[in-house]
Amino acid sequence: MSQTSQAEPKTDKSTVLSIDALGAERGLAAVVSGMAKSAQKNPDIQYIVHGPEAEMTPLIKRYPSLTGRCDLRDVSDAVSMGEKPSRALRTGKGTSMWNALETVEKGEATVAVYCGNNGDLKSISMLLLSKPPGVDRPAIAVLWPSRNAAGYNVVLDVGADIRADAQDLLKYAIMGAAYARNGLELTRPRVGLLNVGTEDHKGRAELREAAQMIEAAAPNSDFEYVGFVEGSDISGTKVDIIVTDGFAGNIALKTAEGTAALVRDLLQDAFRHTPFSRLGALFAYTSLRRLSKRIDPRRVNGGVFLGLNGTVVKSHGSADGTGISAAIKLAFILAQNGFSEKLAARVASQGTAVQTGPNKEEQEAS
Amino acid sequence: MSQTSQAEPKTDKSTVLSIDALGAERGLAAVVSGMAKSAQKNPDIQYIVHGPEAEMTPLIKRYPSLTGRCDLRDVSDAVSMGEKPSRALRTGKGTSMWNALETVEKGEATVAVYCGNNGDLKSISMLLLSKPPGVDRPAIAVLWPSRNAAGYNVVLDVGADIRADAQDLLKYAIMGAAYARNGLELTRPRVGLLNVGTEDHKGRAELREAAQMIEAAAPNSDFEYVGFVEGSDISGTKVDIIVTDGFAGNIALKTAEGTAALVRDLLQDAFRHTPFSRLGALFAYTSLRRLSKRIDPRRVNGGVFLGLNGTVVKSHGSADGTGISAAIKLAFILAQNGFSEKLAARVASQGTAVQTGPNKEEQEAS
Repeated sequence: MSQTSQAEPKTDKSTVLSIDALGAERGLAAVVSGMAKSAQKNPDIQYIVHGPEAEMTPLIKRYPSLTGRCDLRDVSDAVSMGEKPSRALRTGKGTSMWNALETVEKGEATVAVYCGNNGDLKSISMLLLSKPPGVDRPAIAVLWPSRNAAGYNVVLDVGADIRADAQDLLKYAIMGAAYARNGLELTRPRVGLLNVGTEDHKGRAELREAAQMIEAAAPNSDFEYVGFVEGSDISGTKVDIIVTDGFAGNIALKTAEGTAALVRDLLQDAFRHTPFSRLGALFAYTSLRRLSKRIDPRRVNGGVFLGLNGTVVKSHGSADGTGISAAIKLAFILAQNGFSEKLAARVASQGTAVQTGPNKEEQEAS
Repeated sequence: MSQTSQAEPKTDKSTVLSIDALGAERGLAAVVSGMAKSAQKNPDIQYIVHGPEAEMTPLIKRYPSLTGRCDLRDVSDAVSMGEKPSRALRTGKGTSMWNALETVEKGEATVAVYCGNNGDLKSISMLLLSKPPGVDRPAIAVLWPSRNAAGYNVVLDVGADIRADAQDLLKYAIMGAAYARNGLELTRPRVGLLNVGTEDHKGRAELREAAQMIEAAAPNSDFEYVGFVEGSDISGTKVDIIVTDGFAGNIALKTAEGTAALVRDLLQDAFRHTPFSRLGALFAYTSLRRLSKRIDPRRVNGGVFLGLNGTVVKSHGSADGTGISAAIKLAFILAQNGFSEKLAARVASQGTAVQTGPNKEEQEAS
């Protein structure tokens, strides 16, 4: 771990983010480009960057906004994409991901940003950052474009774990509500449980059990439970937070990304179709750019790993500089808000509140 | 069952469709409007319509295209939306849905069209139309807008059953391939299994087991197995058929509908934003209408219930006249192709082919 000549002493107001530069599918250049974009907009960001020094140094030098703001820690080993989590755990030590998370665990940085594969991040994060009391399964939450006033809904879990029992889904509701209060500034967010229909008898047994538990917990919590919601409600106004397991959540997220990308392509085709439509595109240029920005999955990039002792923002594996910059911006906001501490306190106090409600056995018998 | 004065003897070329007019959320008027649209385009369509005669007769009289082509069967009871399937089964007899399916079972009509809730349709369809040899769980397949040359991919199951084991998923692959050969005219369609990642170790145990079974069946079948696919591949070019259980499939479908609807709304907003963009919209009017038609979920409305002795097309519960007309058009094409008979033959012959491959126990042990 060598401090490069570029690094300068941090200011009092500065917030330190720990970046794993080796995880991204589009390589080091995309990560450094994203860092530069965010650094330019937020003068209080400082970075501890984990990546190969020889390649990183010339990339960082390209951007004046990064001068004196990168503490570069030399590391060349990445956890491979697609490696089994169990193997990643055994071989993870000394990789850029391990070092990036360790920097948060040691308190040198407030939030870590990672751009690769889920499973590996989960295993190593849980080992290094452990889980606060009351959390069995961490979850990845994303901000999802919606018709609500905030412009976004919170969806979790979108892929930290393919399983979730009723107790996990209850914790996701509590954590998601805490995230919505901090990230979307909602005082009493509305929670819905993702299902194949809104009627009470729909879905698997664990979903109906989770519905009872979340409903029982809501009066003692700062959220409202709305009931079962469907896939079409994820981008709607019925709820602010959509709770689901990581299998369904991941499929919903990637399906929405695919749909938005298809529509974007078809829109471009439509505008190229005739001379009139090309002229139309010219007149509507600014409005279309605004729309494109709004539905671009890269712009709302950055899932948050909830349920760890420390905040980890996960960027999309295939994100480019713009996407990585969005993830860094989110990390910066959460770091400044002291989100990790607030969430841990919330889950701990909610855990107590939940225990005053009907217990699991009573609910199963009812 | 009274034959109204409007009905005339069928021609030799005519295809009879059985319509449940009481299932639709938007009421009888939407159903009759959809019937009229399809009747106008396809002179060979004849209807047997199940609904309340007193209300239906004036609605049908509004449309000249329906004159002499509706055999109206008086019925006032509908299976309630949201009724538990078990109750729907006990109380289903004598409802419009029961009668509509019975008309197919008796051979009076070739295909039934229904516009309401899944669970009820499944229970009653399975009772009346039973399952051909080799099928344990029927599935609902939809045509999904995609970048492939055909313009659509096939996705199943999107909600017939929230569960599916490895054997069911294999049958879905076989049935989906048969549907793609008939509906999309593909000689050797490519099949993918929906998962949270493309690596072999991803997902639940039953998914990995299904992957092995589908791969083993492919060489003896007229499809190619591509492997695991993700939500973003549903609208892509990697595969033609996406196989999944009814829980994930239903959530993917409704999420995509919600996303497309959000983008459409935002597009309208973008064009209203400035005088320039309003002018732009004017120039691009025709191209935008074409796009709107392409991404409108109502236009590709009409799932097909696969794995029954008889074809049932399920329209979206909230479809309007345009959507219901799309479902009727699909029913007409399948009826003309003799799809039911072809599919039953395919599953029966594939069942034999599959048994020559490694059996379930051997695969689990490997």
